[in-house]
Amino acid sequence: MVLSHTTHPGNIGAAARAMKTMGLRHLYLVNPRHFPDAQAIAMAAGADDVLRHAIVCSSVDEALQGVVFTVAMTARLRDISIDVKTPREAMPQVLQEAVAHPVALLFGTEMSGLTNEEVGKAHLGVNIPSNPDFSSLNIAAAVQVIAYELAVAAQNFVPDIQALQPAPHERVEGLYAHLEKTLVEIGFFTTQNPARLMQRLRRLFARTRLEDEEINILRGILSVATAYNARLKKRYLEEHPDVQEH
Amino acid sequence: MVLSHTTHPGNIGAAARAMKTMGLRHLYLVNPRHFPDAQAIAMAAGADDVLRHAIVCSSVDEALQGVVFTVAMTARLRDISIDVKTPREAMPQVLQEAVAHPVALLFGTEMSGLTNEEVGKAHLGVNIPSNPDFSSLNIAAAVQVIAYELAVAAQNFVPDIQALQPAPHERVEGLYAHLEKTLVEIGFFTTQNPARLMQRLRRLFARTRLEDEEINILRGILSVATAYNARLKKRYLEEHPDVQEH
Repeated sequence: MVLSHTTHPGNIGAAARAMKTMGLRHLYLVNPRHFPDAQAIAMAAGADDVLRHAIVCSSVDEALQGVVFTVAMTARLRDISIDVKTPREAMPQVLQEAVAHPVALLFGTEMSGLTNEEVGKAHLGVNIPSNPDFSSLNIAAAVQVIAYELAVAAQNFVPDIQALQPAPHERVEGLYAHLEKTLVEIGFFTTQNPARLMQRLRRLFARTRLEDEEINILRGILSVATAYNARLKKRYLEEHPDVQEH
Repeated sequence: MVLSHTTHPGNIGAAARAMKTMGLRHLYLVNPRHFPDAQAIAMAAGADDVLRHAIVCSSVDEALQGVVFTVAMTARLRDISIDVKTPREAMPQVLQEAVAHPVALLFGTEMSGLTNEEVGKAHLGVNIPSNPDFSSLNIAAAVQVIAYELAVAAQNFVPDIQALQPAPHERVEGLYAHLEKTLVEIGFFTTQNPARLMQRLRRLFARTRLEDEEINILRGILSVATAYNARLKKRYLEEHPDVQEH
């Protein structure tokens, strides 16, 4: 469980308790406002071991190191950058991914949930079905529902043999950074909205589940494309000494 | 939702919020330690309408007036006085009962849950599956899980035509009281454990789902049994003037 920028320490404690009741124990806290904190321990009500072993990170990327499958909690039923499922649909897939590799369930702040950038780092969105007129579950209550669905799904879970060897989070982020840099360099973004386009590309690759070797291939292509583009540009500037580089 | 003897007002507020997120609004509070309370309103986080309309009762029986189907939350997987199911198994049945009549979901105190006596008033027990080493869900978290299961079950729910016309709670309790009194009068309890035996009888009748007319018949039998017994006793005492009545 990864909680990003949690405001109230009581919610961190209540989330730890919710996790432990369902047999979960790996808690990551991205820039919590107050932690450690006495109120967190009080609300953990005996799950203070989960708090004690919680890992505090300074970024979501740090929390997702080594993770191969990330689920983002979202208040939306549809999202531009990600497929959205119900907890009941999603949890068998989470379990399947977790057979061989670490997976992450990513929760945003109490007030506004996850940012678009954070959601863009996930492979799947999960929306807890709720009252359209009052849909704001407390974050610890959301952790409880998700952990419960995971525990119930686990009771009937039979793993498939893992054919895919998906690359960890940091490798995929490295590709995205490389891709964005390349698209800037080759001048692709001049007429496009870069942020929105990168979201669409993230969505595409999140569906694909890239393997390590595939990332190597794609980054190889990007490097060659940049080099080719640089050569083209150099030649063009040599042939048109009157043109200003921009 | 009926919360019995809740200790912390914050939990009442969090439970109200959990209910409202899943579209539920009828909250009954049996002897809450502090209510109304500012902390309840704070934790309700916008579900204060649920708190404002909450009905405070002085007994579980009062809260269950008019109710035809009661589900008791229990930490046990099996129970002497009641069948126990998982939330996922139970909620379609709860919805089916709720088509025609009020139903109740009954939650006990933070520290010790429901008493045996309270559980004995229910038709069905529900146990939220949890970590055997740390199974104590926060009460508001339990309300959230149950309300969520109910909401998800409601999405796919198609009601059966209601064949049964079950009698409301207070009529069934009236029968139990009459039955217990009768069993005392006819001397049945001399060698038995009355409380335990009444639990077994409650379990039997909870399964049966008595209709109003059936309760009339049974109470008629009880009345006659007592009258017959009283006549026998009177005649015996007349014929044996040396025997002391006890």
